[in-house]
Amino acid sequence: MFADKGYAGASVRGIAREAGVDPALVHHYFESKPALFFASVMPVAQGLPAVNPSALVDQVLSGPVEEIGRRWVLAFLTTWDSAGPERFRALLLGVTSGDGALGSLRQFVTEALLLPLASKLQVDQPLLRTQAAAATVVGLAVGRYVVRLPEIANASVETLAALVGPSVQRLLVDPLPNELLPS
Amino acid sequence: MFADKGYAGASVRGIAREAGVDPALVHHYFESKPALFFASVMPVAQGLPAVNPSALVDQVLSGPVEEIGRRWVLAFLTTWDSAGPERFRALLLGVTSGDGALGSLRQFVTEALLLPLASKLQVDQPLLRTQAAAATVVGLAVGRYVVRLPEIANASVETLAALVGPSVQRLLVDPLPNELLPS
Repeated sequence: MFADKGYAGASVRGIAREAGVDPALVHHYFESKPALFFASVMPVAQGLPAVNPSALVDQVLSGPVEEIGRRWVLAFLTTWDSAGPERFRALLLGVTSGDGALGSLRQFVTEALLLPLASKLQVDQPLLRTQAAAATVVGLAVGRYVVRLPEIANASVETLAALVGPSVQRLLVDPLPNELLPS
Repeated sequence: MFADKGYAGASVRGIAREAGVDPALVHHYFESKPALFFASVMPVAQGLPAVNPSALVDQVLSGPVEEIGRRWVLAFLTTWDSAGPERFRALLLGVTSGDGALGSLRQFVTEALLLPLASKLQVDQPLLRTQAAAATVVGLAVGRYVVRLPEIANASVETLAALVGPSVQRLLVDPLPNELLPS
């Protein structure tokens, strides 16, 4: 249903009806629509901790804004380190091979993850900024879990957060270069 | 041969011998070993301009060091914009699905692209820095060509270079956070 209707178009109620169960049962196993969505696009979930994207957003937002970049890198890599590289690879493979998840995943990422982050930042161009920040941490994950660039794969998440966090920070909150300001 | 022997282990001479041609013929069509390697891992090359990774490194290195981050983003995205999103997706798909190219691609990226860049930077931890910078631009490419995050997909390369260039710049040359310095 996510693939057919997109992330926003599919409802937990509709999914429950299609499955012939009570919506409360769906909520019992998947605490939220984001968690249900994420479970549905993660092909190798058995025996590994669930990825809860809403918790990830909460982690990034809780704390001083001066450290938001570092928290983002830390929360993202901690989540995927514990979820397992094979899950990240499986997700990327699905996206890259153009399966039905791409449209709904894009909508999910922009609306359920990045929009709440963007709306907390008192900055211009919040969508461009948060998408660039997301691209940065996805790139780190590709380097760490897929290509396995040696320094990126072997570093601790704390080291990567200390190194890349300030870069994400300036993407999010630093004044934009002049050519990016509205003229 | 790249898949069997790795990037460093396969020689143009050996590849020519295997193909039953003179090495000069290989050099006539592929000016360098990096270009030959890249052609061999790019599945949809017909009718599109060749990606010349050595030219990319030269572009990044030529000019003031204060602008190296911006040049890196600009050269990388200009190259892939003109090579075509489908080629980036094909490369990522090969890498993610674990085909034989991954080991040789990793070696190629680290030795033929990042090592020359790292050796020009008068900084500590040049390998970690250049791999983090590479991860950043790869993430941008995933966002632009694969996931197609709207702001990243629709921005001009100049806009993305202006936004993300300074982040790559600080990864490459800014003083490292205290916890990353050798104790």
